[in-house]
Amino acid sequence: MRVGIVNVTGYTGAETARLLARHPGVEIAWVTGRSEAGKRLAQVFPHLREIDQVIAGEPGDAVDLVILALPHHAAAEMAGGLLARGVKLVDLSADFRLRDVAVYEEFYGGHPSPELVGEAVYGLPEVYRQQVRSARLVANPGCYPTASILALLPALREGIVEPAIVVDAKSGVSGAGRSLALSSHFSEVDESVRAYGLDGHRHWPEIRQELQAAIGLKKAVRLTFIPHLVPMTRGILVTAYADLTVDWPAERLRALYQQYYEKEPFVRVVAEPPQTKQVWGSNYCYVYPTVDRRARRLVTVSVIDNLVKGAAGQAIQNMNLMLGLPETMGLESLPIYP
Amino acid sequence: MRVGIVNVTGYTGAETARLLARHPGVEIAWVTGRSEAGKRLAQVFPHLREIDQVIAGEPGDAVDLVILALPHHAAAEMAGGLLARGVKLVDLSADFRLRDVAVYEEFYGGHPSPELVGEAVYGLPEVYRQQVRSARLVANPGCYPTASILALLPALREGIVEPAIVVDAKSGVSGAGRSLALSSHFSEVDESVRAYGLDGHRHWPEIRQELQAAIGLKKAVRLTFIPHLVPMTRGILVTAYADLTVDWPAERLRALYQQYYEKEPFVRVVAEPPQTKQVWGSNYCYVYPTVDRRARRLVTVSVIDNLVKGAAGQAIQNMNLMLGLPETMGLESLPIYP
Amino acid sequence: MRVGIVNVTGYTGAETARLLARHPGVEIAWVTGRSEAGKRLAQVFPHLREIDQVIAGEPGDAVDLVILALPHHAAAEMAGGLLARGVKLVDLSADFRLRDVAVYEEFYGGHPSPELVGEAVYGLPEVYRQQVRSARLVANPGCYPTASILALLPALREGIVEPAIVVDAKSGVSGAGRSLALSSHFSEVDESVRAYGLDGHRHWPEIRQELQAAIGLKKAVRLTFIPHLVPMTRGILVTAYADLTVDWPAERLRALYQQYYEKEPFVRVVAEPPQTKQVWGSNYCYVYPTVDRRARRLVTVSVIDNLVKGAAGQAIQNMNLMLGLPETMGLESLPIYP
Amino acid sequence: MRVGIVNVTGYTGAETARLLARHPGVEIAWVTGRSEAGKRLAQVFPHLREIDQVIAGEPGDAVDLVILALPHHAAAEMAGGLLARGVKLVDLSADFRLRDVAVYEEFYGGHPSPELVGEAVYGLPEVYRQQVRSARLVANPGCYPTASILALLPALREGIVEPAIVVDAKSGVSGAGRSLALSSHFSEVDESVRAYGLDGHRHWPEIRQELQAAIGLKKAVRLTFIPHLVPMTRGILVTAYADLTVDWPAERLRALYQQYYEKEPFVRVVAEPPQTKQVWGSNYCYVYPTVDRRARRLVTVSVIDNLVKGAAGQAIQNMNLMLGLPETMGLESLPIYP
Repeated sequence: MRVGIVNVTGYTGAETARLLARHPGVEIAWVTGRSEAGKRLAQVFPHLREIDQVIAGEPGDAVDLVILALPHHAAAEMAGGLLARGVKLVDLSADFRLRDVAVYEEFYGGHPSPELVGEAVYGLPEVYRQQVRSARLVANPGCYPTASILALLPALREGIVEPAIVVDAKSGVSGAGRSLALSSHFSEVDESVRAYGLDGHRHWPEIRQELQAAIGLKKAVRLTFIPHLVPMTRGILVTAYADLTVDWPAERLRALYQQYYEKEPFVRVVAEPPQTKQVWGSNYCYVYPTVDRRARRLVTVSVIDNLVKGAAGQAIQNMNLMLGLPETMGLESLPIYP
Repeated sequence: MRVGIVNVTGYTGAETARLLARHPGVEIAWVTGRSEAGKRLAQVFPHLREIDQVIAGEPGDAVDLVILALPHHAAAEMAGGLLARGVKLVDLSADFRLRDVAVYEEFYGGHPSPELVGEAVYGLPEVYRQQVRSARLVANPGCYPTASILALLPALREGIVEPAIVVDAKSGVSGAGRSLALSSHFSEVDESVRAYGLDGHRHWPEIRQELQAAIGLKKAVRLTFIPHLVPMTRGILVTAYADLTVDWPAERLRALYQQYYEKEPFVRVVAEPPQTKQVWGSNYCYVYPTVDRRARRLVTVSVIDNLVKGAAGQAIQNMNLMLGLPETMGLESLPIYP
Repeated sequence: MRVGIVNVTGYTGAETARLLARHPGVEIAWVTGRSEAGKRLAQVFPHLREIDQVIAGEPGDAVDLVILALPHHAAAEMAGGLLARGVKLVDLSADFRLRDVAVYEEFYGGHPSPELVGEAVYGLPEVYRQQVRSARLVANPGCYPTASILALLPALREGIVEPAIVVDAKSGVSGAGRSLALSSHFSEVDESVRAYGLDGHRHWPEIRQELQAAIGLKKAVRLTFIPHLVPMTRGILVTAYADLTVDWPAERLRALYQQYYEKEPFVRVVAEPPQTKQVWGSNYCYVYPTVDRRARRLVTVSVIDNLVKGAAGQAIQNMNLMLGLPETMGLESLPIYP
Repeated sequence: MRVGIVNVTGYTGAETARLLARHPGVEIAWVTGRSEAGKRLAQVFPHLREIDQVIAGEPGDAVDLVILALPHHAAAEMAGGLLARGVKLVDLSADFRLRDVAVYEEFYGGHPSPELVGEAVYGLPEVYRQQVRSARLVANPGCYPTASILALLPALREGIVEPAIVVDAKSGVSGAGRSLALSSHFSEVDESVRAYGLDGHRHWPEIRQELQAAIGLKKAVRLTFIPHLVPMTRGILVTAYADLTVDWPAERLRALYQQYYEKEPFVRVVAEPPQTKQVWGSNYCYVYPTVDRRARRLVTVSVIDNLVKGAAGQAIQNMNLMLGLPETMGLESLPIYP
């Protein structure tokens, strides 16, 4: 099968190309990137020199599926036209993640194609696998939401925590993309940690939407989400806090999580607190749930590679489902450590 | 005046030497370090080569004050003898920080000199300045407690938050000291974040003790404290969360903090979320309090250099108070950035 | 075919396991590691949790080939016994790299099995591919030698430089292995560069041996090799300097290199100075030769991932050749960037 | 005495402000920075919040000396006017470092005020201390030249090496300044080393000029200078190579260096290879000369903090000399380690 990548010149686009280049079930039909159109991919990304592609200005034809690695708004502007051509889409942007267009518009401004929101499937396979299989348009989850939702889902579904939640997230800098900014300037970031998005990060409504969906409508989720920038390139670690409504020991909690995720190909419930580096370059999410018995709180730590399970890898996982391929195809590489 | 440093060969000891070497009001009388006794300081720490000292095996005489940079237990074992000689002590270890010996023993094992605990003053000048001035024995606060307490004190004292608190802390690796361990091995730590101490970190009772003291005994503080290791050498960033009992805008909260700390020489309430690097190498603590209005929570971010305000700098601040010197003497250097 | 890994608990052993786990032509029969014998591999290396292996104390049976990831001396002590069982060996240590036992003994001390030195093949496929194919015992090159030799070979073979050579190398810290040492302690290494091995690094005779072989015996190679430690985990960058004997423009030099390496599956002559990160996690070596016309010197920059092309990846490349498999099998992954 | 800083908003300008703020002999009269004019210094650089200054658009009056932290060309355009007002100048740019205007123009383009070149003094106090004392206009050396010249000077003056020199330099990223560029973007630089300036770096003619001056005109210096970017913020390490003309052991070489620098307040000849971190935040240069006896080459390693001895600190050292203050005033801080 043939796949196109729109906007290969950002980090998520390049990571998609890296993974697809060695995917045994599909071939890269074309890649686009307006600012670098006409160049060979190797000129922009030397690590992709084995991929024999010239960057096109616009999407080409004759593909089964397109992975959109555009910023929000730009993705929604292009999606309709591609769908009309009968192409399936995995969208890495936030444009189709929020089911409530009003919430989208509060955080992102006017929606370019609200009519498509209804049919989009939120592409977290651990929750929506069946819907993804038959979707035309999949909204690939954000990096923070992926790690946050997987950290909390079993506890919320089981009803053992209050829906008053604090998610304190720590991310590598690649999550901020390849666009130049003082906040990604090496000397400003290196050897330093900072919190950001304290006035409301755009991933907050996305996390809340899915946590709310997990518990149903009986109670409102009260979520604080604070992301932090850490001096490393890849990786997200989420530490999630919620008051327990039960008096469980940590072992029982872990057993619950283990059972919940036992058939998942990419989620691992681990026995020791994980490091982000343990999943570097892979599509795995490691989850460590525990109990702070002194404060009677659930504390769950989860880690992903923000560019793989948090972006391009999950997009390919969704693509595999949509194309009827084995879900793990092309994603089998083990993490690279150290 | 003359000051001795016990165990100069760890990071906090070496940092104490660095700062004292340029302190205009005292001179370094001697430095000890059993494992390196007989070597010149410059052989162990080339950056201290301007300090003309041979490392002694045991404390010398004729000093006004000693800064103990020993591990816990070792500090308490030495303290009594030094006090008996009429020497004042600033202890960088945890041995005299906890007023309740039973709590100490739960977290650290048997206390070598419980009889001294009663007279020790917790050396956070922002809270106990007067007591420090007249103390013989000052327990220098831990690095995490310093940043955590300063982040929460004004809100707790004012009674505007519930005492159900989450402190999510991020630290550079120097906090783990100079002893070799896989968890401080470069290739294991670099490009990675991890949570640790999930079964109960030793700084938890210290933070709780001081937060409890801030609100009095009417309600019990319910504290979760989770530290994280971040791939950098120096710096701690604390993000503290608590439910607000009032409906204040962020501005009013900031005004409260500003008023609370306005006379403090080393605490700055800042208008933008701070980075650890903004206080690198200095004795400052930057505090940024804000409100998550969607979840009605207080969120406060504070940063310190763990080896300065979190250890050696604060020890010298206490020393200045104990010796009747200006509190800021020898600590005026600005942070080094970038 | 079945392969065993001896001493899987170091970084090169673990990297070998990572790559073999997804190698389609062989299976991991057993892994050993004395200090961790009896543990599951996942307990020592969480990133390898997908590999279902218990660490054995001693090598098992019934394998076609063993990859030895032991320190020097220990490798040579074990090699003879394994060969006697009819097993092929790729040795990651230095024990069989130096053809002259006297030189070996100057740098490494007494050789445990000098009788095997003669039949060992130096496993740099770009030079000794045919010999590797039929070898029983392959000495996998050192990380610095791999990058250094590939940087200089075409120029030396062509006779366009004097054999008076300076190799200034920069390495990530993983090259120093997983054993604890102050020189690999995070806080000592982070944000710092240092030179080491100034009294004679063990890779010096290995590089000299191969450069000398490249030019024959008419002139003696006069080599200075100075490695540096750089605050990163993986990657080696070599900058090699030699006086040119010809007046070539950079383009002609590059054409020579391109022609020399055009059939090599893992060497790429690149048009811009490469970064180590461009080959991260892959078996590629990128080489950039150029001319300093003001000083009439050749300057060549080469980069590899020290744990892949500099160790485990090259070992698998050699294994493939020895087992009659396609040379690139299991090594096709693209570099991971950023 | 009163000092002004032009262009305080770059890293060297900010570092100058940091050091002057605690300098006991001068006060900061004003600071300029066109793009941020009207803001408080603390808004641009939170670490400088203790300095009570509003950034001005243009230089003010009534100062004894101005430190110019402008880019090249801009500095030369402003210098004449300031000198005409009777103000002394230390220029951090390259505009007055090269005595030969033709060489300047080859590397930097047309010179805005060539008439001033003749009177400028190259501000390396270790070589030109007397001339600096009486100068109106001092050209502060580049960071690479400072470390390179100090590494080679004693050997060249003594005539014990051939003037065929390779300088391989490794620098932290702050040397590239605060302007945004992909080559300073965190994710591109982190965990990576690269060589740059292979077609001729602008510091090459500056280093050559001073090395040539050291040996006089009998022989031409043949210099290759290759800088490398290393993933750290501050620090330069230079490794300098030259063929020895004598058969000295390393001890004799070290004695020569020690004698040469024995009266220098900021140069230390050290007994072990230094790390950049050992001088972090300080004005020291550590130099380690040794002999590669196998190749009969001099190898010298030197380290500085590129923003202090390589820029702002050396500017203040020059300022002190020009204003008749003690040379070390305001520069006594020890390096910060780790």
